[in-house]
Amino acid sequence: REDGIEAVDIATPNFLHYEATKAALEAGLHVICEKPLFFEVEQGEEIKKLAEEKGKIVCVTYGFSGFEMLQQMRAMVTSGKLGKINMIDLRYAHGFGCDPEGDVKSEGQRWRVDPKKVGRAFVLGDLSTHTYYMSQLICPDQKLKQVLCDRQAFVGSRYPLEDNAYVLMRYEDGAVGRMWCSCVNAGDMSSQHIRIVGSKASLEWNDARPDIVRYQVQGEPEQILYRGMDYLAPEAQEDERLGALHYTGLIESWSNLYGRFAVAMDAKNRGDEETLKNLIYPDLEHGIDGIKWINACAESADKGAVWVDVK
Amino acid sequence: REDGIEAVDIATPNFLHYEATKAALEAGLHVICEKPLFFEVEQGEEIKKLAEEKGKIVCVTYGFSGFEMLQQMRAMVTSGKLGKINMIDLRYAHGFGCDPEGDVKSEGQRWRVDPKKVGRAFVLGDLSTHTYYMSQLICPDQKLKQVLCDRQAFVGSRYPLEDNAYVLMRYEDGAVGRMWCSCVNAGDMSSQHIRIVGSKASLEWNDARPDIVRYQVQGEPEQILYRGMDYLAPEAQEDERLGALHYTGLIESWSNLYGRFAVAMDAKNRGDEETLKNLIYPDLEHGIDGIKWINACAESADKGAVWVDVK
Amino acid sequence: REDGIEAVDIATPNFLHYEATKAALEAGLHVICEKPLFFEVEQGEEIKKLAEEKGKIVCVTYGFSGFEMLQQMRAMVTSGKLGKINMIDLRYAHGFGCDPEGDVKSEGQRWRVDPKKVGRAFVLGDLSTHTYYMSQLICPDQKLKQVLCDRQAFVGSRYPLEDNAYVLMRYEDGAVGRMWCSCVNAGDMSSQHIRIVGSKASLEWNDARPDIVRYQVQGEPEQILYRGMDYLAPEAQEDERLGALHYTGLIESWSNLYGRFAVAMDAKNRGDEETLKNLIYPDLEHGIDGIKWINACAESADKGAVWVDVK
Amino acid sequence: REDGIEAVDIATPNFLHYEATKAALEAGLHVICEKPLFFEVEQGEEIKKLAEEKGKIVCVTYGFSGFEMLQQMRAMVTSGKLGKINMIDLRYAHGFGCDPEGDVKSEGQRWRVDPKKVGRAFVLGDLSTHTYYMSQLICPDQKLKQVLCDRQAFVGSRYPLEDNAYVLMRYEDGAVGRMWCSCVNAGDMSSQHIRIVGSKASLEWNDARPDIVRYQVQGEPEQILYRGMDYLAPEAQEDERLGALHYTGLIESWSNLYGRFAVAMDAKNRGDEETLKNLIYPDLEHGIDGIKWINACAESADKGAVWVDVK
Repeated sequence: REDGIEAVDIATPNFLHYEATKAALEAGLHVICEKPLFFEVEQGEEIKKLAEEKGKIVCVTYGFSGFEMLQQMRAMVTSGKLGKINMIDLRYAHGFGCDPEGDVKSEGQRWRVDPKKVGRAFVLGDLSTHTYYMSQLICPDQKLKQVLCDRQAFVGSRYPLEDNAYVLMRYEDGAVGRMWCSCVNAGDMSSQHIRIVGSKASLEWNDARPDIVRYQVQGEPEQILYRGMDYLAPEAQEDERLGALHYTGLIESWSNLYGRFAVAMDAKNRGDEETLKNLIYPDLEHGIDGIKWINACAESADKGAVWVDVK
Repeated sequence: REDGIEAVDIATPNFLHYEATKAALEAGLHVICEKPLFFEVEQGEEIKKLAEEKGKIVCVTYGFSGFEMLQQMRAMVTSGKLGKINMIDLRYAHGFGCDPEGDVKSEGQRWRVDPKKVGRAFVLGDLSTHTYYMSQLICPDQKLKQVLCDRQAFVGSRYPLEDNAYVLMRYEDGAVGRMWCSCVNAGDMSSQHIRIVGSKASLEWNDARPDIVRYQVQGEPEQILYRGMDYLAPEAQEDERLGALHYTGLIESWSNLYGRFAVAMDAKNRGDEETLKNLIYPDLEHGIDGIKWINACAESADKGAVWVDVK
Repeated sequence: REDGIEAVDIATPNFLHYEATKAALEAGLHVICEKPLFFEVEQGEEIKKLAEEKGKIVCVTYGFSGFEMLQQMRAMVTSGKLGKINMIDLRYAHGFGCDPEGDVKSEGQRWRVDPKKVGRAFVLGDLSTHTYYMSQLICPDQKLKQVLCDRQAFVGSRYPLEDNAYVLMRYEDGAVGRMWCSCVNAGDMSSQHIRIVGSKASLEWNDARPDIVRYQVQGEPEQILYRGMDYLAPEAQEDERLGALHYTGLIESWSNLYGRFAVAMDAKNRGDEETLKNLIYPDLEHGIDGIKWINACAESADKGAVWVDVK
Repeated sequence: REDGIEAVDIATPNFLHYEATKAALEAGLHVICEKPLFFEVEQGEEIKKLAEEKGKIVCVTYGFSGFEMLQQMRAMVTSGKLGKINMIDLRYAHGFGCDPEGDVKSEGQRWRVDPKKVGRAFVLGDLSTHTYYMSQLICPDQKLKQVLCDRQAFVGSRYPLEDNAYVLMRYEDGAVGRMWCSCVNAGDMSSQHIRIVGSKASLEWNDARPDIVRYQVQGEPEQILYRGMDYLAPEAQEDERLGALHYTGLIESWSNLYGRFAVAMDAKNRGDEETLKNLIYPDLEHGIDGIKWINACAESADKGAVWVDVK
């Protein structure tokens, strides 16, 4: 384009994502959009078709997913270091929604508890989609089959939206999982936790210390792996800039993510499908998976916390 | 009695608990029995009647429940420091059952995976009853209403028993909870975790560091409380022997527990119902609660992981 | 200047700092220079005079000193929360110099072990000046009086430079301190530690988790303070961008530091001495303090680890 | 003896240890004595002669030294897993002496700050001897050559005794070390720390979590070893009773220690010098080493914190 604009970053409240994405694609721009992407899977499918027509991509800002150690976990999982994956334990549960005043006073919070602006879910959409995507990044071969979700509005004014949700998951190959997402987990500052349990070993990660991964082989000493070290998989060293002992934070995750978005856009522009296929970043498909996740959870909860298929 | 015997400690495999307890009571002895107590609630009710007739008590060896900091948590919960209790998050999930060989080679393990000897559950009975009792000790006012349990035998030979179980809980007053019990949580050495979340603050405890409790008030600095300190509630100082900085382990928990059993037996012998009523220890009622817990979980799981009432 | 250049950032090996700084000042530029600043205090004094003449400032890149929680520690120390400061315990001791090969193979390492290029010290200059400056930032009223330093070259080829040093400190008001700096502390990834002990409470910080500070009042529950929270001192919130739960790393520290350099340069340009006086950042005086520190340590060590005055 | 008494346990204030030990030996009893043993090395030598004459042993209650993981550390150090030992970093520094009132009010504290009853040192004798002995247990081949000690009485009424001391150590083979002992380290509950640094790896232990050891090989993932596991050295499994996942505390350390004392006494009674020689426990020689340690530290401090030979 003459104006040099290549992409648009959509950071509006959720209910505007779909229209804005559509408009941007039609204007010939790549899109970077906040999670959760849209409200309905059909919208996702429509956008997918449109993006293909226009030769553009849609990236989703799962902002915690750029941490290098997540790539390390993926490399270890996919190379079989854990044995067969049996359990995926996820948690994104803080307490900053304990005070109902925040729903009124904070502009950033107000629309998040308004069903018209966020759709069928509050914390399931605002928090759990992050951690759920990260679990997909780490365990790319696990296909989610069914979920069961029990959700509550401990701050009653949030009903029918939830401020706390427990989800149980069943995967196609027999693995199971859990998610706890909450904004009323009073006082917890430990943020996101991911634990992947295999038949012989587990991996554990927490975004309050994003540069380490615990690797626990049953019957052997526990191991702690650190970012920036030579013993890591090449995929975990790709985005390395600072070197070991120099610890990173959320900004570096975002930076790594945007770096990958740029590579993806450039590859798309050049028609380099090989690069696009191999690049690990949250794309439109992952955004649609997030919609499926939220809607399946909400449906389960609304039916009284029963098992529902993810589709 | 002439022989000076006052009590019998039953540490047999589960299927022998009922007969042995009955015989001991009929022989005029107090009973200390391993968990889970019996297979059926009816057996518990029958034993209760028998114990009353004989003027004896039945104590249950929930061996981790003697840690002093659990009393601190109870004191803080019951005095309202957390606000209204909203969530009870429990976990007893290790990985020492990852290797199927253990089921055959280890005598201590062999009967635990034999339905004839353990009844309807493996880890739900062997592990989760501990943590469940501790949650009752800490939150005495929470009445469990419904459970939903999804269980698996990741080591297939254990079927129809489970080596992993996810439980969701609903309490009568609207609180919810989770339990994860497992012996195939590969490599995890962190043992039991208890997190109690109230409307304004949370408490967290882990039996790998039993002398500390994390107290997290939303919006305030996180606090760590240590055993043996003057700032603790009197109930948390009752069993104190070593003094601060001298850390305790499982043996002290057992020791505190047996100390309380002795006080209870003595009170029963003297007809001192006041002492008995105020003494916090795992008694026959708690043992029966454990049976209800296991059976409700097993029933839920067997029906496909649906909600069932606890009764 | 016509070319728009306002400042130069000197990141050369140490022996070039003095000439480069002098040239930059004479060219009418502000200077940002790597630590340790120069080899001799006299050079520092000369540069100070030159900078005053030219109306320019010299900033020192103590790159870890931009972490927000250090400002929190300073606020707590200077407002008396700890009582009288008795001890300052410092550590910057990693193990990345264990392998002597690195001295030869790594270009970044080679000049660091060459006395001609680094002067009288290796790790004392390369590592300990960071942590020493941070201790001054936190405890601005502590004046160092005497040091005693025992240093070793465990990799013998580094002699007469050291790869490990123990320093004891005595402050003017009776406080004492310790520093351990090392690149042969095999396997340690915990990086820098700072512990400030007062007559009634202590503070502890570690750059592997830079967003938390432990605040330990004797006889009270330990407290953990988190970056981004409202309960922090205003000084610790000045540089806040991400918000609580979003953890930061070294890049944010550098960013905060350069932000402060920019404010300082602008204030200098405008003749705003009030702003300059109140702004906390590593300036030329702190750079000269670093030279004094290194030289006093080296002198002490060379005399057999005896007490020497810092001057 | 007809009365069946075999040994006496001396837990009096320090100044009575010598007379009581002498009397006990002369009465034909083995002795278990509190640390620090006596005030003068000469007393130790005299008692040694007397014990030999009487065919009895003197054990010293370094009560933290029975933890099983210390045996693991010794096994790893002596088998060369760390390479050449370069540094020994020790710390026993709490804050329970911050309040001067305790010196007056607490009977247990009052004699500890009275030079007539404790000799030349307060915390150096009361605390540091523990950790120093444990370092000898772990590194049996390190011979201490020189110490330098700077000590303070931050609570002035304790002068000329110290409530805080920094010690630097030099060992015969070139290794160096540090000790920090204190009772005015306000708010610290982390108790004793031991870090052993070798040319290629380090070990770290802390008595607040006595069942784990960190094993850090430079350039490899950090490892955490747990008590009770099969991968430990046989020496670390000798005293095992509880099994993995069941964590131990100070009482188990004492129990292991007394078990070893019993074995030593029995071996002495039977004239089994082979067993005695191979058994690891704090004996009279270690008690005398403790006296040497305290006196060298006190001498150094009294001369203004200069290097003195340990003899």
